[in-house]
Amino acid sequence: MGDTTDVPNRMSDNDEPDRLGEFDLIAAYFRPLTEGRPEALDLKDDAGLLTPPKGCQLVVTTDALVAGQHFLADADPECLAVKALGVNLSDLAAMGATPAAYTLALAAPKPIVPGWLQTFASGLGDMQAAHGIFLLGGDTVTTNGPLTLSITALGWVAAGQALRRSGAQTGDDLYLSGSIGDAALGLLVARDGRTLAGVDGDAFLRDRYDRPRPRTALGPRLVSIATSCIDVSDGLAADVGHIAKTSGLGAEIGVQDLPLSDAARAALAADPSLLKTLVTGGDDYELAFTAPPSSAAAVATAARESGVPVTRIGTMTTEPDVRLLGPGGAMLDLGPGGYRHF
Amino acid sequence: MGDTTDVPNRMSDNDEPDRLGEFDLIAAYFRPLTEGRPEALDLKDDAGLLTPPKGCQLVVTTDALVAGQHFLADADPECLAVKALGVNLSDLAAMGATPAAYTLALAAPKPIVPGWLQTFASGLGDMQAAHGIFLLGGDTVTTNGPLTLSITALGWVAAGQALRRSGAQTGDDLYLSGSIGDAALGLLVARDGRTLAGVDGDAFLRDRYDRPRPRTALGPRLVSIATSCIDVSDGLAADVGHIAKTSGLGAEIGVQDLPLSDAARAALAADPSLLKTLVTGGDDYELAFTAPPSSAAAVATAARESGVPVTRIGTMTTEPDVRLLGPGGAMLDLGPGGYRHF
Repeated sequence: MGDTTDVPNRMSDNDEPDRLGEFDLIAAYFRPLTEGRPEALDLKDDAGLLTPPKGCQLVVTTDALVAGQHFLADADPECLAVKALGVNLSDLAAMGATPAAYTLALAAPKPIVPGWLQTFASGLGDMQAAHGIFLLGGDTVTTNGPLTLSITALGWVAAGQALRRSGAQTGDDLYLSGSIGDAALGLLVARDGRTLAGVDGDAFLRDRYDRPRPRTALGPRLVSIATSCIDVSDGLAADVGHIAKTSGLGAEIGVQDLPLSDAARAALAADPSLLKTLVTGGDDYELAFTAPPSSAAAVATAARESGVPVTRIGTMTTEPDVRLLGPGGAMLDLGPGGYRHF
Repeated sequence: MGDTTDVPNRMSDNDEPDRLGEFDLIAAYFRPLTEGRPEALDLKDDAGLLTPPKGCQLVVTTDALVAGQHFLADADPECLAVKALGVNLSDLAAMGATPAAYTLALAAPKPIVPGWLQTFASGLGDMQAAHGIFLLGGDTVTTNGPLTLSITALGWVAAGQALRRSGAQTGDDLYLSGSIGDAALGLLVARDGRTLAGVDGDAFLRDRYDRPRPRTALGPRLVSIATSCIDVSDGLAADVGHIAKTSGLGAEIGVQDLPLSDAARAALAADPSLLKTLVTGGDDYELAFTAPPSSAAAVATAARESGVPVTRIGTMTTEPDVRLLGPGGAMLDLGPGGYRHF
């Protein structure tokens, strides 16, 4: 317990050198992330202010990440920033929301190193630019424990139009953005030192683990097209299971239809047992969504306009559970943790 | 590093017993805190949804608290819940916002004890009832470090009407809600075992430290009356200093005008040196605000309607800095950390 003044309202409150000694760091690295937007009030007031676009609902998501658990303890701070924002923006995309702003709670071990903070802030800034958001507020504190980040991302969606996990209909096509399993393979490369797809391929896979690319351009374009949507963070099988379960349905996924990167394809060719990793590993931050066959052209247009590849990977069924079908339609059982009842 | 599925989107994602093993705890203790509000989507989707009231701006604040630093490591979980929500709601009140909802990121040491969580959730529930809010979403993770809480509180204020720290005018009256210094004295009781005001008095002071009472009934009533407002979290002198500095002014505070509880008055009578603690200690979570003398009646009405006592404690001055004036108008110097230039 330090003293009685240890609860700063906002970053800007840490402005006494005898407090955290971080005043200069925050002014130097966090205030610029507000991009001078009046909503952030220069991080100098008790809270931030956002004006709702007409006819919109606010979409709010909060994700926490702990060093050594949700990211490697020695993770590059730029990757960390990208990941912390990425997982939250991915949630907004899954709801069809257009990202607006975010708040950051950073609990950092002492001492906070300026160089570390600079790289971290740089990663945040890159993500801001890529997704059209800015820092609205937050809090910086120190901890005796591991680095802990909590981000709350805020976005807007036309009232009543948010995409939900529920809503899929029997016979709907099941789609997936981007490619699947890269991040899970990348973790094997990064954490376990596995060699899976050659030097360039492994670098690609690791990058996919380190730097999620939340599909914020695609999600809002799926509004009024998709009947359900989720972001793939827990693994394709599990997350399609969430859609199926909340929609009161099941799903069939054609394994041969899964979009794989060249690197994932090479890894799978060398070690077919990696199929389970591809299908059940997490951290993809792709969108899985459903739409009726009559919307196939609209889905293709949304994909083209957003610059995000979209692949039809299966069908929603009345029969419950998620089934993985191999070539010829045989059901695959990936063993414990693979094929699961949801 | 556990596996690749360690980044749950929301509390509801922890629904596999092999993940955190917390599915039942979350269903039992957190889902009820959504109070069945449709905005929270039962914590079963990727984000929560809020519909803005017509003509309102969103007010957003995020505060993080770390065990052993912002609260005693052995703090009662009910107090902890009250404090974590209280500091955030106090920020909303300072902006004149009416609280709406909040998200919670909880990083808890393993194992998470059901009894602890039950008491914690009960504290959240009591605060929700007192302030008209509900749980909109969040994230629960485990940590090898100290318990870390981050709350983002969301509220609404009429567009363009948010109270700010800046805006005070020369000659404005300076007001304070409630009483000052109780929490700082309570910390001396709780942490240092001091005896200050007898058994009942000390219990009162400790309660004021443990359970902030954010002035959410008063803040919104000060909209269009107060010219500036801040919540007193860093200590009265420092926070009035924030108003003064951002308004380009100074302030004179009459020490004899400070509203003291009976317990604080008794403690001060026994040990006059505690004046410095009263004026510079933090964690009061009262509102300090300014208004022109012509608004005195309106301020009194706001106080009466909200049931929160409000006391005039000083005046905003053209001369910079915060000056504490003793009986007869002599300037007090409280020594290092007491009288400060802002």
